[in-house]
Amino acid sequence: MSFINNSSGKIRCGPKALLAGVPIVLIGANVNNKPTYNVVGNFGVLRTSSPPMIYISTDKKHYTTQGIKENNSFSVNIPSADLVQVTDYCGTVSGHNVDKSTVFQPFYGNLSSAPMIRECPINFECQVIRHLSDVFPDGDIFFAEIVESFIGKQYLLDGRSCTVDIKTVNPIFLGSEENYWVLGNTIAKAFSVGKNYNN
Amino acid sequence: MSFINNSSGKIRCGPKALLAGVPIVLIGANVNNKPTYNVVGNFGVLRTSSPPMIYISTDKKHYTTQGIKENNSFSVNIPSADLVQVTDYCGTVSGHNVDKSTVFQPFYGNLSSAPMIRECPINFECQVIRHLSDVFPDGDIFFAEIVESFIGKQYLLDGRSCTVDIKTVNPIFLGSEENYWVLGNTIAKAFSVGKNYNN
Repeated sequence: MSFINNSSGKIRCGPKALLAGVPIVLIGANVNNKPTYNVVGNFGVLRTSSPPMIYISTDKKHYTTQGIKENNSFSVNIPSADLVQVTDYCGTVSGHNVDKSTVFQPFYGNLSSAPMIRECPINFECQVIRHLSDVFPDGDIFFAEIVESFIGKQYLLDGRSCTVDIKTVNPIFLGSEENYWVLGNTIAKAFSVGKNYNN
Repeated sequence: MSFINNSSGKIRCGPKALLAGVPIVLIGANVNNKPTYNVVGNFGVLRTSSPPMIYISTDKKHYTTQGIKENNSFSVNIPSADLVQVTDYCGTVSGHNVDKSTVFQPFYGNLSSAPMIRECPINFECQVIRHLSDVFPDGDIFFAEIVESFIGKQYLLDGRSCTVDIKTVNPIFLGSEENYWVLGNTIAKAFSVGKNYNN
């Protein structure tokens, strides 16, 4: 590590993904028609509008990766903080060695091959639309369409619209210092607070 | 919106990216050798290990997208909560109409074409390695290698290692109810708390 010769006065850390907090998700997939689950931090939304698309980046060797390739589908499940222990467990033991099929109560939507986790507030049922296996040698990247999304009624701001009450969902974020975090307070209204900024 | 005919008792929201909280980042790019900035929620890490890779998903029409294509490079900058107003501003006005080059103090690293934001605690200097323009009609997806990362010394847990002090960085998260949020407390040790779980 060294100071770079520029005027920013910042520390140069080399090519490093200094993470500022990533929401972690549980991936569900069937391997030989049996659910298995893994934790993925490398998850994100590619497109919010219809049809919404997400990506996950997984290790080629992981058991869930095998299930995703088997069925071209998987689930993304957003755990609440009260599930932190079982979530961490799913991320630290391999499906190659441990049967995780009974860790959660699975349910299925339109697809029969994407086991979703009833215990998680939010679930996405995902159909793979593109598999990128050549971006890096040890990993697979999957682009998937969200074919259906599910949420417990108690996690909605309004029982009828599908607007998420984030504080009630209470998702888990992973920091680069290897701690799990939860959200704190709201600080401003999005797409609004900037209107008062004078350039 | 209707209940699905399965035993989960969950509400079916249709194909919708029900977000549980996404850290927002500022993208920097040069258009005609002049910095411009935009806010992107569709950002994520593809690969943490070396070389780290990230993705961003942008609107084809956006001004910053033009700059990324021009130089095959861009910056990812993580704003602190105290930058929420100017960040929201950058996300709500278009570089096609407004000159945002003076909104921040830019600095450059190894590449001369990725303007980084001095005011942001963390900066990634990114080189595009793959451009996916055919995943959906109105958007571009860029895979990029982090060629260099920068952080202010005050945002490190230890002035010498490159471990981020997330609470000091105080990143901004966007909720689907269109509020900006900050992190609260740490709840558990990652890759550790699960060891006590009995399957």
